[in-house]
Formats: sequence, C-alpha cells, structure tokens
Amino acid sequence: MRVVDLIEKKKKGQKHSREEIEFLIKSIMDGSAADYQISAWLMAVYFNGMDIEETTNLTRAMIKSGEVLDLSAISENIVDKHSTGGVGDKITLILIPILQALGVPIVKLSGRGLGFTGGTIDKLEAIPNFNCALSMEKIFSQVKEIGAAIASQTTNLAPADGKLYALRDVTATVDSMPLIASSIVSKKLASGANNIILDVKYGSGAFMKTPKEANELSALMVEVGKNLGKKLSAVVTSMDEPLGRAVGNAVEVIEVIEFLKGNICKDLEEITYKIASLALIKEQKAQDEKQALEMIKKVVESKKALKCFEALISSQGGNSKVVYDYNLLPQASKKIEILSQENGYVSSIDAMKIAKASKILGAGREKKTDIIDYSAGVYLNKKTGEVVKENEPIATIYTNIKDTKIAADMVMEAFKFSKELPEEKSLIFAVIE
Amino acid sequence: MRVVDLIEKKKKGQKHSREEIEFLIKSIMDGSAADYQISAWLMAVYFNGMDIEETTNLTRAMIKSGEVLDLSAISENIVDKHSTGGVGDKITLILIPILQALGVPIVKLSGRGLGFTGGTIDKLEAIPNFNCALSMEKIFSQVKEIGAAIASQTTNLAPADGKLYALRDVTATVDSMPLIASSIVSKKLASGANNIILDVKYGSGAFMKTPKEANELSALMVEVGKNLGKKLSAVVTSMDEPLGRAVGNAVEVIEVIEFLKGNICKDLEEITYKIASLALIKEQKAQDEKQALEMIKKVVESKKALKCFEALISSQGGNSKVVYDYNLLPQASKKIEILSQENGYVSSIDAMKIAKASKILGAGREKKTDIIDYSAGVYLNKKTGEVVKENEPIATIYTNIKDTKIAADMVMEAFKFSKELPEEKSLIFAVIE
Repeated sequence: MRVVDLIEKKKKGQKHSREEIEFLIKSIMDGSAADYQISAWLMAVYFNGMDIEETTNLTRAMIKSGEVLDLSAISENIVDKHSTGGVGDKITLILIPILQALGVPIVKLSGRGLGFTGGTIDKLEAIPNFNCALSMEKIFSQVKEIGAAIASQTTNLAPADGKLYALRDVTATVDSMPLIASSIVSKKLASGANNIILDVKYGSGAFMKTPKEANELSALMVEVGKNLGKKLSAVVTSMDEPLGRAVGNAVEVIEVIEFLKGNICKDLEEITYKIASLALIKEQKAQDEKQALEMIKKVVESKKALKCFEALISSQGGNSKVVYDYNLLPQASKKIEILSQENGYVSSIDAMKIAKASKILGAGREKKTDIIDYSAGVYLNKKTGEVVKENEPIATIYTNIKDTKIAADMVMEAFKFSKELPEEKSLIFAVIE
Repeated sequence: MRVVDLIEKKKKGQKHSREEIEFLIKSIMDGSAADYQISAWLMAVYFNGMDIEETTNLTRAMIKSGEVLDLSAISENIVDKHSTGGVGDKITLILIPILQALGVPIVKLSGRGLGFTGGTIDKLEAIPNFNCALSMEKIFSQVKEIGAAIASQTTNLAPADGKLYALRDVTATVDSMPLIASSIVSKKLASGANNIILDVKYGSGAFMKTPKEANELSALMVEVGKNLGKKLSAVVTSMDEPLGRAVGNAVEVIEVIEFLKGNICKDLEEITYKIASLALIKEQKAQDEKQALEMIKKVVESKKALKCFEALISSQGGNSKVVYDYNLLPQASKKIEILSQENGYVSSIDAMKIAKASKILGAGREKKTDIIDYSAGVYLNKKTGEVVKENEPIATIYTNIKDTKIAADMVMEAFKFSKELPEEKSLIFAVIE
C-alpha cells in the first residue's frame, strides 16, 4: 500500500477500506506519510467526503493511535459533555454540579483551546488556586468522593487527531463533516466515558453556520459513536447570541454561581436542563423528561447543586469562598458601561461581535503562549427581548487594556433594537440520539 | 496575504488574481509556503481548476521564478519542439536535421526524464562521445554554424515548476489541465524560442488517454502562449501504438538514420512532416503545407538532411561514422526474435506493453540514478496492417539481461491479429494554432 495511491483513490471519489484508513493513520503516526501527502489527502476528503463506514474507521484508527482511558473502575456509566464551542458557553460549569447533586458521575477532560474567550478550564482557573492538572489517581478518588472531576487533558489521547488538526488548520481543510466528526468523537471516546452528550452549535457565533449543517454533523457523530459501541447523543442548539449575560472568564464563573443561587438566565436554563435531562434518562435515574426536570429544579432550588460546586472547587484546590465573595476573583481595573442610544427592545445581539470584543479586552488567546486576563470580559445588562431606554446601560466591559474604544464600539454594534417585542425562539433545534 | 487564505479561496472555487498567484509562487520559492500548504492548494486546483487568465498568470510567475534564456542574438525566430511523451517517439531527431537543411534554426533543450525508454538526449548519447552538456556559448556558435543544437537543460529554468512537479508526483495531483499546461509552457517559454510546436499525444501509450483531453490541453497551452506573446502551436496525435518500428535508444537512432536514408516509416513521416510544415509556414519559409511538404521531401531525398545529422553529431563530439556503420553503436549481447503464432494481419500493437517490455530489457530508468542500457530495446518487424505468417518474426528484442521471458511474453501480448486488413487511420487528430 502506498500513501500516494490512497490520495488518488479519494481524489477519484472512491471509498477507503478499514485497512487503508488504518494504514494511513499508522503512516501519519510513524512519519512515513509526509505532511504534504496528508494535506493533499485531507483536501481530497474535503471534496469527495467519506461515508459513515469510512468515518467510523477513521475515528477508530484515531482513537487507537494513543492511550484510551479506562474509567470503568469508577463506574460503568460516566457522563461526559462536549460543546463545539460558543460565546458565553458556561453550560458545562452549571451542568457538573447539577449532575453531582443527582448522583450522576461526570468526568470532563478538556483541551486548552484557542478562542475569543478561554475554554471551560481557563474559566475555572479564574478561581484562585483552582487546579486542573489532575493525575488519573486524583480523578478516580475525587469522582468517588464528590461525583465529578474536571481536568486538563495531559495524556496522549487520539494523538493522530492532534497531528491532523494542526495540518487542517493551515491548509483550509477544517470544514469537512467527516473530519470534524472523527476529530470530536475520537477525543471523546478516548476519554473513557460511556455516556457522551454533545452540544452542537450553529449560528453567527459558531463554526457551523446553519442548523442543517449542525444537524448533519450531529447525526454523523451519533452514528459513529453507536458504531463504536458508545451511548452518544447530541443537542443541536442556536449560537446566534451569547449564552447568558457574561462573556469572559471570571465574569462567567460569577454567572454560574448566580445561576446556582437561583438567578437563572433563561437561555442557559433551557440548554443546560435539556442536557442534564438527557444524562438522567440515559443513566436511568429518570423515566422521562418531566421527571428529570423536576429532579434538576429541586437540586438547584435547594442549593444542593451550589454546595456541590463549592465541593468541586475545594477538592481541586480552589478557594471556594469565591462563591460568597466575588471580590476574591481577579478584578479588572476598568469597568465601562455602554449606554443605549435608543428606546425600545433589544432585537438581537451578535455573538461574534461580542466574542471579538472580549478577545480585544484580554479574555481569550490567539496563540498557545498568549496569557489570558481572567478579569476581562463583557457583561450584557440587556438581553434580546428586554426593554431598553436611552442612556440606560446595555452592556458593561471589564478590562485592563489602555484603549477600550474599538472594543466598546464593537459591543455597541453588536446590539440591534426594535420598537416591537421580538418573537421568542427556542434555542434547541433538535435532539439526536 | 496568507497562503492559507489562498487555499481557502481556491477550495471555494474562486478565481485567483495575478497578485495572488505571484505571491504563491514567491512563497514557494522562498520557502514561506510550506509543502503541505502547496499540496493542499494543488488538490484544490485539481478539483476547482483555473481559468485561462489564472493559468497564464501561473505560467508567467513560474517563468519568472528562474532564468529566462535570450536566444535573440542567434535569431528572432528560433524553433523549439516538445512532445508530451510517447513510445518510440524519435520525431525530434528526424525533425532537427530536416529543419537544419531548410535553414530554420532550432534549439532543443531537454530534461533527462524518467520513463520506459530514455528521452531524446539519452537516445543521442547512445552515439559514442555525443555530448549534450553544451554551454550557452557553444549553443550560440553551433546554431550559427550548422543551424541546430540539442542540449541537456543545465540552467535554472522555471525552478518553481520543478518544485511543484516534485510535489504533484507524490500527492496524486499530476492530472490537472492548468497544472500540466503551465508546467510545459513555462519550461518551453523560459528556454527562449519564439516558435514553439508541441506534439500533444493521447492514447494507451500517453498520459492523456483521449483525443478530447489532449485537445483541451493543447488549446489551453496555445492560448497561454499567445497571452504571453509567443507563437505556440500544437499537433494532437495518437499514441496507441509505438511510433516507427524501434523502441529503445540505439535502435531508435538507427531508425532515424534509416529514415534520413530514405527508408521511411509512414507514421513517423506523417507527424514529423506535419510539424516541419508548421515550422516552415510560421517562419514564412513556405506559403502553405503543399509547398512545405515539397521542400521537406526534397531535403530528405537529396540526403541533405542526413548530412545535417552527421554535422550535428560531429559538432557535438559524437562519432558521425555511426551513420554508415551501426556496429559503432552499443551492441546487445542478446537478440531474440518473437515469432508469430498466427496467420493474418497485425490489427494493433499496444504501445504501453512494448514500453514496459523495453523498460525491463534495460532501455529506461525509474530513478534518476538508474543507468540506461543504450543497446536495449524492441524492434517491431511487423507494424499494424502488415501481413504476418505463422513462425515469422513479428518483433526482435535486444538486451543484456539474463531472464528475457517476461519481456518477451509482454511483447507477444502487445500484438493483436485479425483475418481482415484493419482500417488505416490518420495519427493526427487536430492542429491547434
């Protein structure tokens, strides 16, 4: 078998056998396939696609390229949740304590991605001394004790995906359904959970622009997961507007705590509770969504979930007093209110503009070596559908940068207004399982 | 401008500007574009193509990536001829002395390609001491003196093409019309001739399998040449059967000499005379094809062309006595006749099978470091349309290898027979100018 012949085959739109895909991944890992051959193959895949069988075989080969975690010593039914990435997406941080409170073990391993704001792990590291570099022993003991652990991925999970992704990023071959699906599913399956729930986002603030695309990707991933013997389900959700009111790191942690204290932002509630319900039903803790929702609401109202979050922070070395004193979180030297120039209703808030503004303010990183300013971010005083009067603050920016004009203008531009109350829409387009 | 954005653009089927293509070639030459980016771009070009303007811009940029020869001190009307490659293709070797005899200056620079038999230069080097490593000074003085020179390409012509071709070869991106066209035309235009005639072959023994493809490529190359201010024309010719009777190196030189002595093989005559006519008309030496053909026939019949070939050999250091004593050429230790097992007519001879057999016999090279056996090759005692009787030799193989069975069987398999005289066909599908 020669790599050049496999490129030719995919170029002609032919189907790869399992052996061919395994040969390709092996060649990538041992260096016998040159990067320039892999990138040509990736571009051929972009154009001619791969069917479900090929995508399954690619995912399996990528999983086998590295270590596969075995969490069965903790439980056969560990939950994992993954989002394809959104603006203000703090759902994992609310979901974890809710599932903890309901006795559903969850282990979340996260990479430290690049983006407009930090990832889940970066957000938690806004809490002084919070430690995400957990050993497998610590993960095991913590999940047994408090029901959850969230750790930065240090082990060598699906390294073939790392190699492929690095190439895709610089060769304009990121946006291919089978490549995206195998990348996400291989990492999740190598992480060892049996019950994986994916939040696949679409809209202006997401990688997938349309619900149709997000649906297609979700169906593909669920099918691949099934083919590889795992429970994998997906919620397809809108990401046209930031989720919740906070976009950044420390500001998002505060919003998570406020949620668990009962100050619930509706959009966060809708998606978080849907995912939590799915987890409960899959784990046979609830018979149906109605029962699941009652259970979820109860642990939030009783503050049991809040206590679980405190326990998570403490167990991972963080200062859990932040739950009652936000001044213990990193503080920005500047806090600037953006005032409305209009009367009426907020009709939309462009997620991508808010994300870019947050990045400028210091909340994200572009290169791996960039340092995140945990205190930086944007708070939306007004969300879509809310009444606004002239000179009332619609948003607040937190930062330590000198010149805030560009970011402030960007936040202002993100807001659109109308005289009539805009129609309320569900954020959940589909659930695929 | 970033290379990744240009890949994305071509991936989406958008058109590159001249600046973008020049940036790309510059980035290839200075190494700022990684090979894995170039190969992804090449694959995107394979799928989405390039229009005539893009192909012209790519060709221009590739020419400008290296040295451009200036032959104007010899003449403003130097002829060059290039074949896309065929089996038994010795047309250049017959064409050169004919044009010499008719006072049309021709400079032929040739690479030392890989293939089933040697290239034009390898064939000439079968003549003892023939030297193709000519300096520019030598080329100038020789063309002034005897009207022609044939040299191995030593200068740095269109080096971007070399880099691109090396990548295309290992990433299954050779078969793209704009990439093939720009590769051929850039090298030819950098060689400095003003009047370039391309022999674009199609059929089982050629890279292009159909006349339609060869026609499309020819039209594209002629258009690009025109856009870059050169006279460029193309003949589209069939390569289903070997050209002439000899396939190899020394055996082909003998066939050339025999042709110039009047033992003319019809297929060689058809194409060679068509190309020579085109050159004469373009150079305004003849008014039309009828007049051109008369001129050509005259210099062959009078042996003036043969004398010119002797002069060429002598001028380049070779032993011109080979013209009258073929024993001075390298001799194979084995000469094996392949005998017919049928009575009837030869109905076809598969060019690719004869080529592969020649390769096995030692006539070609696979790697640059392979050594050619100049004495090896195949001679077709019978050509298509000729009567054959059982046990009569249909072909003769010349070689020094030990086990000749595979090659002999292959030659045998190349022949097909019929009871009826097969229809005679013209080899020239089209002339594009």
